Amino acid sequence: MTLIDETDTSTFPRTPRNTVRRLPARAAYDRNSVAAILDEGLVAHIGFAGDRGQPFVLPTAYARLGDKVIVHGSVISRMMKVLSTGVPMCLTVTLIDGLVLARSAFHHSMNYRSVTVFGEAVLVTDPGEKAAALKGLTDKLTNGGRWDDLRPVTSKEVAATTVLALPLAEAVAKSRSGPPKDDAEDMNWPVWAGVVPLSLVKGEPITDQA
Amino acid sequence: MTLIDETDTSTFPRTPRNTVRRLPARAAYDRNSVAAILDEGLVAHIGFAGDRGQPFVLPTAYARLGDKVIVHGSVISRMMKVLSTGVPMCLTVTLIDGLVLARSAFHHSMNYRSVTVFGEAVLVTDPGEKAAALKGLTDKLTNGGRWDDLRPVTSKEVAATTVLALPLAEAVAKSRSGPPKDDAEDMNWPVWAGVVPLSLVKGEPITDQA
Repeated sequence: MTLIDETDTSTFPRTPRNTVRRLPARAAYDRNSVAAILDEGLVAHIGFAGDRGQPFVLPTAYARLGDKVIVHGSVISRMMKVLSTGVPMCLTVTLIDGLVLARSAFHHSMNYRSVTVFGEAVLVTDPGEKAAALKGLTDKLTNGGRWDDLRPVTSKEVAATTVLALPLAEAVAKSRSGPPKDDAEDMNWPVWAGVVPLSLVKGEPITDQA
Repeated sequence: MTLIDETDTSTFPRTPRNTVRRLPARAAYDRNSVAAILDEGLVAHIGFAGDRGQPFVLPTAYARLGDKVIVHGSVISRMMKVLSTGVPMCLTVTLIDGLVLARSAFHHSMNYRSVTVFGEAVLVTDPGEKAAALKGLTDKLTNGGRWDDLRPVTSKEVAATTVLALPLAEAVAKSRSGPPKDDAEDMNWPVWAGVVPLSLVKGEPITDQA
């Protein structure tokens, strides 16, 4: 799979789906911004339509491999079955960076970085590509290198797993950072204002007893 | 608004929308499990259908107030406009609790707690209810008590804000916790296995200079 070139400054084409209309200054369409957020995130929220247009939004693990976002699940999973038919889907990853506490309720906000990818998933059936995708999903959890140390996957496990690739072709990043943006006349209001940073932090690993 | 009674052991009715089909043992339909996850989360992912059934999934702040989930946005926001027409929506909140590193790739997983709420949003227009909702959204960021210290909201700000209430009537919690569940024959495979806990942690507050 093609790796995104970090010197590549190209952007995703703007389409009716991925164009940010609300606060457009917060949007970024360049591939590197999108890739960096996807690579840091751990859980994506996938949206798809069920019966009678009812939307479903389900959290799922994912990995970016080059210009594709890989998701996987049991072959009997409803979401995998629906998405593998190539229906329009939306995949969103959000990193929470902080609480923005302003001097007025109106300017309270959150600092965040998010990516939204639109498109249709493609079923990965080629055994080599499927193995590479499963390796990518596993290695992502430990920043690489774990796959080779594990008990090798069996053909039965591979057969029980649906792997889907969502092309990273129509995507957008959106983010907010920095301090609150209060109205000028509120700057001396007697209340603490600022940012409370938030980050997803690893705790002490808990070894499983054999 | 009615507060959820913590001694209430009642459950949400199971419907075609909220019934978990994949790994049903991970599902919980009781109101307290759902409320606890909603109260801990900060960002919801909202799914709705746009033109031609294209799903959109957008991250947004929210607050649970009794038996409603409150979201808000600019009156010119597309999402607010679409949702206020009462289309079917899905609101999902996910808390990431840990990486589950097993001895085989197949049993890798994540520990998480999530809630999915299905329904149709109702526009909040009553001034008192709207103010209570905005207070709830603001106080959630600091676990309460901030609203009263802020520069009071103006009628112009309230008019510029759409507030929607999603009834907490059709919802489900889903979670995974605990160690990896490896196959018995893999338990002595020579690789570290266990859980790496993850939690969203507050950093040192950054005071905004007036």
